[in-house]
Amino acid sequence: MAHIDLGVDERKLPGINGLMTFRPETAKPLNMLAEQLLRGEHSLTAGERELIAAYVSGLNECQFCCSSHSAFAAAQLEGGMHLVDQVRADVVQAPVTAKMRALLQIAGTVRDDGRKVTTELVDAARAEGATDVEIHDTVLIAAAFCMFNRYVDGLGTLAPTDPEVYANAAQRIISVGYGAA
Amino acid sequence: MAHIDLGVDERKLPGINGLMTFRPETAKPLNMLAEQLLRGEHSLTAGERELIAAYVSGLNECQFCCSSHSAFAAAQLEGGMHLVDQVRADVVQAPVTAKMRALLQIAGTVRDDGRKVTTELVDAARAEGATDVEIHDTVLIAAAFCMFNRYVDGLGTLAPTDPEVYANAAQRIISVGYGAA
Repeated sequence: MAHIDLGVDERKLPGINGLMTFRPETAKPLNMLAEQLLRGEHSLTAGERELIAAYVSGLNECQFCCSSHSAFAAAQLEGGMHLVDQVRADVVQAPVTAKMRALLQIAGTVRDDGRKVTTELVDAARAEGATDVEIHDTVLIAAAFCMFNRYVDGLGTLAPTDPEVYANAAQRIISVGYGAA
Repeated sequence: MAHIDLGVDERKLPGINGLMTFRPETAKPLNMLAEQLLRGEHSLTAGERELIAAYVSGLNECQFCCSSHSAFAAAQLEGGMHLVDQVRADVVQAPVTAKMRALLQIAGTVRDDGRKVTTELVDAARAEGATDVEIHDTVLIAAAFCMFNRYVDGLGTLAPTDPEVYANAAQRIISVGYGAA
């Protein structure tokens, strides 16, 4: 149960959903940010950007966000959940493009400490064809999930264990996006 | 110099300012979030909320964000920069209210790892009069600055060393708010 009284049934509104119902004033910009970063027009697919979100949330061991964005990535990537699991287990060996691998490495570094992102890491991504916007958005997605993960866990919200909950949420996100609720 | 070409003179638009000019699509929700969290109608003063932002940014050693929000807090708190320095040096001994001390301790814990926030920490804040909204917003401010700090440092932006830059920025934030630029 959450640390504060959210005034909702957390089984129906788990994780960030209950928080957003409790505090619509902050839910609005948070949803706008997620919608722009993960679903806005982009040279990276929505699946690729969700994969970055899932990877960072996994490193932060945030069960609700990692399960959610793993499901959202899986539903939008050719390799499905198997690919997401491979990336989370070993980003160097996982069968993603060289550009995605370089971007995921930047994301993992940002998660640890923004100051650790080196010119070499950025140049490596650029050498694989990453644009400045792709590098910018990768850093901001990684940074944003360091926020979302702490928000969800810092308030002690419920993370369902049933994978179907997250698979259903994926279908909602794909059809109506973030913040439509 | 930033890791990507922001297309701006970073001496004129240091830190997050250049990033926001480079990517207005994400600047909008980020500014809306900062405005709501730090300046929206609230039972905590703007100075108290800026103090939480400064404290977290200091723990993350993000020079630009810590200098900025320390200046913004100092300009809006009775004790000025001396109080901000005291809080950053020793949150247990600093002359803030017992409620603010409890909230700052929650913020510091969220910065480390959201999962470390205990019922005891939350109950301690509540015992000093903290409301659920105050506890929620403290957690989200701390989480948000774990994003802003990584965003600013992960892209290698410039952090001016001249305190006057931040003092001038404080006057702009107080008079027009976040995102007016």
